[in-house]
Amino acid sequence: MQIAIALFPRMTALDAIGPYEVLQRLPQFEVVFVGHQRGEIRTENGFLGLTVDATFAEVPHPEVVVMPGGVGTRALMNDKIVCDWLVQSYATSVFTTSVCTGSLVLGAAGLLNGLAATTHWAAMDELGATGAIPTDARVVEHLDQRIITAAGVSSGIDMALRLAELLVDDTAAKAMQLGIEYDPQPPFDCGHLSRASEAVVTRLIEYASIRD
Amino acid sequence: MQIAIALFPRMTALDAIGPYEVLQRLPQFEVVFVGHQRGEIRTENGFLGLTVDATFAEVPHPEVVVMPGGVGTRALMNDKIVCDWLVQSYATSVFTTSVCTGSLVLGAAGLLNGLAATTHWAAMDELGATGAIPTDARVVEHLDQRIITAAGVSSGIDMALRLAELLVDDTAAKAMQLGIEYDPQPPFDCGHLSRASEAVVTRLIEYASIRD
Repeated sequence: MQIAIALFPRMTALDAIGPYEVLQRLPQFEVVFVGHQRGEIRTENGFLGLTVDATFAEVPHPEVVVMPGGVGTRALMNDKIVCDWLVQSYATSVFTTSVCTGSLVLGAAGLLNGLAATTHWAAMDELGATGAIPTDARVVEHLDQRIITAAGVSSGIDMALRLAELLVDDTAAKAMQLGIEYDPQPPFDCGHLSRASEAVVTRLIEYASIRD
Repeated sequence: MQIAIALFPRMTALDAIGPYEVLQRLPQFEVVFVGHQRGEIRTENGFLGLTVDATFAEVPHPEVVVMPGGVGTRALMNDKIVCDWLVQSYATSVFTTSVCTGSLVLGAAGLLNGLAATTHWAAMDELGATGAIPTDARVVEHLDQRIITAAGVSSGIDMALRLAELLVDDTAAKAMQLGIEYDPQPPFDCGHLSRASEAVVTRLIEYASIRD
């Protein structure tokens, strides 16, 4: 069984690698990194190269699709190859999922119409514009529709543990959590916008404007 | 200022990408992925390719060193090029750090003699054999010695937030936490060995034996 994780220029690495690190340890699955063409893509700032091993066309029916986010997602929203692949693979997938602004691409492909969904906190309005109902939750799942969306960047780890439970069983998911020693102890409590001060938000905007 | 993250065959991707995702957003730093030779390396199971952009020799004096872990670290413990690079770069680094079994390599290089240090929970005995004092903590820091070690895989995210605070200030670190929306909500509470059942540990060992 295949888990396809999309890679594309100017993506956010952790959106893909968080779920990968959980799911690659399930021996029932093969993980394949898919993209427009085989070879290297670069993350937002160009610091990191990741390898695409198969084109979208070469992986038409994966059991699981993971669409990561990043500034590069805006280009994908109008990309017919990506949107068609999402729609086509969704028809036979067990779960179609996204992390961060990856949900904007699911939305652009028409997969989130009228559905509650989540994304990075800074992209909620954009998500709503695709027809989804933006929802402030870390993971939003629709088991009937086989669609799961996760919030910003690091939330893909939480989502992948839930996916492992759904795909195998809860013992498997717990074993994956122990394997990656996911016993989070953040030194601060600023991971949600509601608990971040104005100074923190201002600093983030300042840094992002320099890096982008 | 440079942050050098080592890449090597059969490494664990999240050990490197967790810290990368936090630190790459600090505009004061350039992140460079270093290794034996430029080009692609593959993670444990071969599913993921990551690009080495510079050799160890080309980055002799980074301000920060991050040594990730993975099954491939055992080969590095007897690797003179890697151990010499760690010792040499340590002399001028602001912080030399490790994630997961990356601390075994710091230990093999002689950097942890008599120091409390941490690693993946399954590698504590190996860590002790290098001369370090194995310590069950998520992040162990020695600010006088400029050495920080983190526990298994996902702990690199927590360590990197602390590093951001030490390298810049706490507002910067909190901004990075908000940027990656690190508000962890694991669906289970099995991230530490003390809270995992025998069935979970058994499953993890079973899966690891298949994948390795």
